[in-house]
Amino acid sequence: MTKIKNDLLLRALHKEEVERPPVWMMRQAGRYLPEYIRIKEKYDFFTRVQTPELACEITLQPVELVGVDAAIIFSDILVIPQAMGLEVLMEENKGPSLPKTIKTEQDIDALITTGVEESLHYVMQALALTKQALNGRVPLIGFAGAPWTIFCYMIEGKGSKTWDKAKQFAYTHPLLAQRLLQKITNITIDYLKAQVLAGADTVQVFDSWSGALGPNDFKLFAQPYLIQIADALQNDVPVILFPKGSWYALKDLSESNAAGLGIDWCIRPEMARSLTGNRITLQGNFDPAKLLAPIGEIKQAVKEMINSFGTRQYIANLGHGITPNVPVDHARAFVDAVKEYTPQKV
Amino acid sequence: MTKIKNDLLLRALHKEEVERPPVWMMRQAGRYLPEYIRIKEKYDFFTRVQTPELACEITLQPVELVGVDAAIIFSDILVIPQAMGLEVLMEENKGPSLPKTIKTEQDIDALITTGVEESLHYVMQALALTKQALNGRVPLIGFAGAPWTIFCYMIEGKGSKTWDKAKQFAYTHPLLAQRLLQKITNITIDYLKAQVLAGADTVQVFDSWSGALGPNDFKLFAQPYLIQIADALQNDVPVILFPKGSWYALKDLSESNAAGLGIDWCIRPEMARSLTGNRITLQGNFDPAKLLAPIGEIKQAVKEMINSFGTRQYIANLGHGITPNVPVDHARAFVDAVKEYTPQKV
Repeated sequence: MTKIKNDLLLRALHKEEVERPPVWMMRQAGRYLPEYIRIKEKYDFFTRVQTPELACEITLQPVELVGVDAAIIFSDILVIPQAMGLEVLMEENKGPSLPKTIKTEQDIDALITTGVEESLHYVMQALALTKQALNGRVPLIGFAGAPWTIFCYMIEGKGSKTWDKAKQFAYTHPLLAQRLLQKITNITIDYLKAQVLAGADTVQVFDSWSGALGPNDFKLFAQPYLIQIADALQNDVPVILFPKGSWYALKDLSESNAAGLGIDWCIRPEMARSLTGNRITLQGNFDPAKLLAPIGEIKQAVKEMINSFGTRQYIANLGHGITPNVPVDHARAFVDAVKEYTPQKV
Repeated sequence: MTKIKNDLLLRALHKEEVERPPVWMMRQAGRYLPEYIRIKEKYDFFTRVQTPELACEITLQPVELVGVDAAIIFSDILVIPQAMGLEVLMEENKGPSLPKTIKTEQDIDALITTGVEESLHYVMQALALTKQALNGRVPLIGFAGAPWTIFCYMIEGKGSKTWDKAKQFAYTHPLLAQRLLQKITNITIDYLKAQVLAGADTVQVFDSWSGALGPNDFKLFAQPYLIQIADALQNDVPVILFPKGSWYALKDLSESNAAGLGIDWCIRPEMARSLTGNRITLQGNFDPAKLLAPIGEIKQAVKEMINSFGTRQYIANLGHGITPNVPVDHARAFVDAVKEYTPQKV
C-alpha cells in the first residue's frame, strides 16, 4: 500500500496533531470547474458516473486545480436506489427523478439488497483507478447517501422543499418505513465496505434532508441508521456523518462510533464544540454563498472560522455543497486561506 | 371598541393566565380549504388580495370552518415590494416573481418608502371589514414580511433554495444591503402601524428565509431590523417575530420588545424555553407534515407538544405554513386537540 503523503485529513479524524487543519469542499468535483464542464458537455451524467476513467479524471480535478487536501470520488448518492432496482433519471441542471416510487409493502419487498459489489462495480473501479492515480498525494473519500435521504427520494421520486410525502409515509406507516430504511442501511453498509476494499481511506454519509425532521422524528427515522453505519464501518476506516440541519442531534452522534461530524453554517462552531465535547472531529461549516463574496472577505471569514473551531479535531469545509456559480479563484482562495492559517497571527 | 370574547391569544402574549393555550395555524386562510379553492377558481391571486370583501371572506373561513382562536388577514408579504414601486407577478401554484430586481444603488434610491397607508389601502380596508365581521369573536392578526425576507425576493426576483444571489449582494455590498434593509424596515413599520389603526390586535413579522443566514450574518442583516420593528410597535400591539430556522437567535430576540417568538419544529420546546427563559411567549412548532398523519397520531403529538411547552406563555401553532394537501378534518383535529388539552389527563 502506498503511504499517503498528505494525511492531514486522516490525522484530524484520528484526533492526532496536525500542522494546520485539512481542507476539502463538498461537491468539489464538478459544477463550478470549467474542466468539469468540458467533460459534462461531452458525456451525460450517468456516463460520467459509470465510466471509471471519467469519474477518476473528474475526482482528480480539484486536487490538481484547487489544491484540496482530499479527493472525494465523483459519483451520486442515487446509485443506491439504482442498485436496489429502481430507475433513476438525471435531467442535466434539473436534478434527479425516479419514475417508479415506493408506495406499498410489496414495493419494499421487491427491492434488491444484495450484490452491490457487482451492481455498482463501476464505482469500485473508479475508486481503484483514482487511488492509483493519486499515488498517495492525498486521501481518497468514498461516500453514500444516508438511509433517510435515500428514503426521501424513493418515496417522493424527486427533490422537494418539504419532503412531505416522505414524511407522511414515515408518520403514517412507521414500521414499514423502518423496514425500508433498514433495507437501505444494509445495502449501504455493503456498499461502503466495498468502497473501502477498493481504496477509500474514509467515507462520508450524506444525510442531506435530515434537517426536514424534528428532533424526535430524527431519532426514529435517521439516527438509528446513521449509528448502524458508523458501527459497521468503525474497524475499516473513519466515518464522517453529515446530518445537514440536524444540529439538535450533534450530542447523540458525537457519542457514536463515527470519527467525524459535518455541520452546516447555521450553528456557531463554539456551540457545536460545546455539544460534542472532544468526542469527535468536526467538519464544516463555511456558508457556500460566502464563496461569492470578494476574496478578501472569504479569507477573513475563513480565519474567523478556524479561530472558532480551533486547529485540532477539525476539518475545514463548506456547510453544504459548492454552488455552480462560484468562480474558481474564489474556491482556491478558500483553500489557500486554510493553508495559510497561522494561529499566532490572529 | 368591541370587547374580544375569545382573547386567549392576547392573554398568552401578555403572559397572563389562560384556561388553555390559544391555537391558530400559519397559512390557515387558504390553500387546503375547499371554500377557499372555490374563490380561487373565480378570482386571481391579487384580485383576492386587493378586494377587501374577498380578503375578509377568506380570512373568516378558518375561524368558522376549523375553529381557530385567531383570524389572520388574508394578504401577501410581497405587497411591500409593490408599495415600494416594484412589480410582483403571482403565477397560481408556482409562486411569485419580480420582473425587475434590485441591482444597484440607483435601484435602491428609486424605491418608494412613503404613503403605504394609501398604496396598500385595500389591506387596511380588508382589516376594518374583517374586524367588523368578526364582531369580537377572536383577535385579528396583521402581518408583514421581515426586511431580510423581503430583501431576498427583491434581489433574487423569485423563490430560491439557497438565496445565494441575495446573500452575495449582502456579503459583497453590506452597506448598500443595509440601506435597502433600512428602507424596507421604515415602510414596514408604517404599514404595520396602519394595520393596527385599521383593527389588527397583534402583528406577526414573517422572516421566512432568515434561516439561510448563519448566526453572524443574521446579526448583521436580519436581527437589527426585527428589533426595530418590535421597538416601533411595542406600545401599539403585541408583536410576534417568526425567524424561521434561526434557532440560534432565540436568546437575543427573547430580550427584544417583541411579545412572541415563533419557532419551527427543528428545536425541542424545552430547548427553546431554556434559550428564552420566561422573557417571551413562544409560538409553534408542530411539523406541518404531521398533519398528513392519521388523526390519532396528530392528537397524540399535539398533547406531547403542549406538555413540552407548558400552557402558559404559549401559542399552539405549526412550525411553518399548512400545506395545500392537508385534509380539512386533519387541520380541525389539530385545533381540537389543543382545545381538548387538559394537563391532568396526560
